[in-house]
Formats: sequence, structure tokens, C-alpha cells
Amino acid sequence: MPVTPAATPVTPVTVVGLGSMGSALAAAFLAAGHPVTVWNRSPAKAGPLVEQGAVHEPDIAAAVAASPLVVACLSRYDTTRAALAPAGGALRGRTLATLNSGSPEGARAMAEWARSLGARFLDGAVKNVPQAVGAPDTQLVYAGDRSVFEEYEPVLRVLGGDTIHLGEESDLAALYEVAVGATLLPALIGFFHGAALVTDRGRTAASMVPYSVKWLEMIASILPALADEIDSGDYARPFSSIGVFRDGMDDDLATARTAGLDGDWLDSLYGVVRRAVAEGREGQSVSALTEVLRRPGS
Amino acid sequence: MPVTPAATPVTPVTVVGLGSMGSALAAAFLAAGHPVTVWNRSPAKAGPLVEQGAVHEPDIAAAVAASPLVVACLSRYDTTRAALAPAGGALRGRTLATLNSGSPEGARAMAEWARSLGARFLDGAVKNVPQAVGAPDTQLVYAGDRSVFEEYEPVLRVLGGDTIHLGEESDLAALYEVAVGATLLPALIGFFHGAALVTDRGRTAASMVPYSVKWLEMIASILPALADEIDSGDYARPFSSIGVFRDGMDDDLATARTAGLDGDWLDSLYGVVRRAVAEGREGQSVSALTEVLRRPGS
Repeated sequence: MPVTPAATPVTPVTVVGLGSMGSALAAAFLAAGHPVTVWNRSPAKAGPLVEQGAVHEPDIAAAVAASPLVVACLSRYDTTRAALAPAGGALRGRTLATLNSGSPEGARAMAEWARSLGARFLDGAVKNVPQAVGAPDTQLVYAGDRSVFEEYEPVLRVLGGDTIHLGEESDLAALYEVAVGATLLPALIGFFHGAALVTDRGRTAASMVPYSVKWLEMIASILPALADEIDSGDYARPFSSIGVFRDGMDDDLATARTAGLDGDWLDSLYGVVRRAVAEGREGQSVSALTEVLRRPGS
Repeated sequence: MPVTPAATPVTPVTVVGLGSMGSALAAAFLAAGHPVTVWNRSPAKAGPLVEQGAVHEPDIAAAVAASPLVVACLSRYDTTRAALAPAGGALRGRTLATLNSGSPEGARAMAEWARSLGARFLDGAVKNVPQAVGAPDTQLVYAGDRSVFEEYEPVLRVLGGDTIHLGEESDLAALYEVAVGATLLPALIGFFHGAALVTDRGRTAASMVPYSVKWLEMIASILPALADEIDSGDYARPFSSIGVFRDGMDDDLATARTAGLDGDWLDSLYGVVRRAVAEGREGQSVSALTEVLRRPGS
């Protein structure tokens, strides 16, 4: 089959990796009418997509050769390279878009590997759950050659209406994914901690949810102001100071202990606050913790 | 002045503590047409409120005696008791509502103290920033005697349209405040970590904000499902597994190190993930971390 690099209203797409996210991507391409070839290490995952009209190609080189656009959604960059290695020759002249998680370093190594094979390359990140793929406000960010992005943007946009090109540096999507994603585990562990506290009192975790959702909305509402403080380096007019967090520390840790909970992670977070206080930042905005994070502790 | 416990369309309110939140509360009562008496340890804070029509009473006993409803918004329960101690006699028969931060233990001790003085008592929590006080969707939760709450609900509602009574146990507002609030510092430190990563690459923290806001919306959207898993104890059908977080751990920590950032707090959070994996929970939902938090590590 000849390589057809130009995106057309109907563009064949190969999806490599059929975990829950990869399967959601393939289903979205199919729903938009694009011919989809799928490959997965364990072939059983291809079944539901074949029922939706996908072609299952168990040979990775043949799978890659089937489409001008290859979207890989494996767990990491190294697993992606390992899976695609037998298809190295087939990648020449095609466009590879990776949508796995990983570090900026990993994205740069991936871009270099694709370049060495003569493939065009985009690295992207899906900032959402598989269930959200295809929705108008679902966000996907890409980095790499702008002309490649623009060529395939109409195809990629079927994965989420909020599809953005961050820049030409190949690791920018990974950088923003790691940077933006850095709130996930902390926020979840904070929520689980709260759930452990209320369930310890015989209440349901579900009873917290309406308050927690509002609380996350509140946190979102203050991010622009906090970002401006970080960008200006002016922490002198806080609406929430480091001292306020210092004041709550002992109570928070005591409440965790009283309920018999693991407070080590919380103590470690408050360690950042303690270092800020030790630096005389008590009266500064909580956003000045960014300055403390920039200089590792002993 | 006689004690007038019944809430009327116009109810005199005394606000004790004029930090940014206390000042916002007093301003909201004034804006709703209630006579407001204010007290603060440093009298200068009263100036702007006096200009808006408040009476400044520098003597705490006289300030308490001025209104049937006393709203205290100091930093903690012990500072509240210390400030109100000279007004102990004046509290008899009046209603004291505390809106400071603090632990459930602190709320119970505060309730006991108020009871010993013959005061009626509500403990509340403002789950928002001072700027949001008075808005229709701003949330305030209260705990304590329901009849006291119902009597003053019309007055308290001017502080936020989403005013809720959580239950009769005096520490429930503090419990939910600590539980719900437990996402704040983690989420902020996660955001600051991300900001340090992108600014290290010459990008602004502000450039992250649109993505971070969407990300917090995504996190909010999965809380109901996670809460149901916690309440049922059924972690077997994850849409995001502990293994997924384990897989991202090394990259996240390496990215922090490469950028020269403090990764200690992040390593401590991943410690919870590592313990879950050690317990064989790799394939369980990330919400099973709640079970790990319930049993402190060594």
C-alpha cells in the first residue's frame, strides 16, 4: 500500500496499543468514519474494535504499513519503542503520534528514534479519562513539527474537540502532561485521606463528594492569581499566606493521628511549608512554596 | 441591651476577628442590612467596616453583649477562647458561631466551653476564599443544635447561598472541613511543582492554568465513582489502577530531579503507592489507597 501522508476527509489510521485509552482512541477514529487498523500485544483486546469495523493486524510491521498515521498508546515510551521496533522500516515517511504517559526526556528520546527511522513525529498527551475521548471539550495537547500537526489536525480532532499544538519542541506535550498532571496523585491522596476521616466516623465517602467538588472548583478559581504571583515573583500581597497553612499544620496532623491514619505523606507536604517558614516566608503568598520547591532540601 | 435570641429580619450580629475572612463576613452582614458590631485585637482593622456602617467596640464583653448572635472568625479555637474569655459572662443565652479552621477535637472542646458558659453554639466552616463570601453558590457548613441553626439560618445565609447543617454532633463541620480541605495543600503543591517545571523551561506558570483548570475538573468528575468504590470496598473494576500510578512513578521522580526540584514530598506520596503495590493491590482501583492510608506504615 502506498504511503499517503496527506490527511484527507477519510484517513486510514493505525492504533498501536489497545488498553482502555488506546481502545477509546480507535473507537473514536472508527466513529468518525476513518479506516482503522489495530494492533495489540495480546490480540484478544482487538475483538470489540473489530466488531466496530476495525481491521486487526497481528503483525506490527503490517499494521504500521496499513496507514499513513500511526497512533501509539502504550504505557511508556520504552514499551512503545519495543513494540514498534520490528516495524522500524515501515515507519519511514509515515507519521507516528505517541499518546502515552512519560517524561520530557522520554519524549525527546522517542522523537530522536522516530527521526532516525525517517518517520514524522508528534508527541501528544490526553489529559482525561478514556470515557471522555471524542467529547467536544476533551483536551489533547501535541508537540512537534507544526506542519505535521496541521496536516493531521482534522483527524486528531475527533479524539477531543480541544486539540492544541503546544510548540515545536518535541517534549512540550510531555512536559505539560507531567506539570499539569502533578496535581492528580496529591489531590487524590488528599481526597482519600478525607474519605478515611469521614468513614472513620461512620459517614460515607460519597457524603463528602459535593463539598469536595466545590472545593476543587475553589482551588481552580485561585490558580490564575497564584500563577501570576509565580510569574512576577511578587509574593507580598497574599490572599492566603504560608503562615495560614503553618497554623493549620498541627491540627491536621493531630486529626490524622487520632483517626489512626498514615500521616507521613502529609507531614512530608508540610515539610515544604516548614522550610518556607524557616526561610522567613511566613507572610508571603502560599505560591512562594514554588521557590522552596526549586531548591531541594537536605 | 436585652438578649434577643429570635432571628428577625434585622438581627444584630457581632463579628469577632477581622482578618480577611472575618472582615468579609462583617461586610456581608452589613450589606444585608443587619446591625453589625465588630471587635478585633488590633483596632485598626475595624476602620473600613466602620465606614460601611459597623459599630467598633474595643471591649470584647461589650462587643458580645451588643448582639444575640456572635460570629467568631479567629485563626483557631484556642485563639477564639482566649479572645472571648473576658466576655464569658456576656455569652450566657447568646448564640456563638465559630468559623475558624481547626480539628474536630478543637470543635468539641469549643462546644463544651460554650456550653459551660450557657451559650448556644454552632461550629461552622467557610469552604471558600474571603472574596466569595456572600455569593449565591458559596458554601458554608454548620454543625450543632439544629434548632439554633434553623433560628439563625436566614441571617447566616447572607454569607453564602449554599448554607448547610451537617448534623447535631458539634464537630461535624470541623471534620468535613479537615476532610474536604485535605486536598488543598496537596493540590497546590502539585500545581507549584508543575509551575516550577514549566518555568524551568522558560514558559510561564500562567501558560499551565487553562490545562490545570481542566485537569481539576477531570479530577472532580471521577470523585463520585471513587467514593462509591471506597464505600463499597470493591476496588476490582478500576478505570485507573494503582499499577498505572506505579508505572508513572520513576518518570515523575526523574523529571523532578532533572529540573533540580525538591522531590521529597512527591517521593513520600509515591510511598503510599509503593505500599499498596507491596500489598498486592497493583490491579485495584487507585481509590484502594484509602485502605493503605487507614493503616499507618512503619
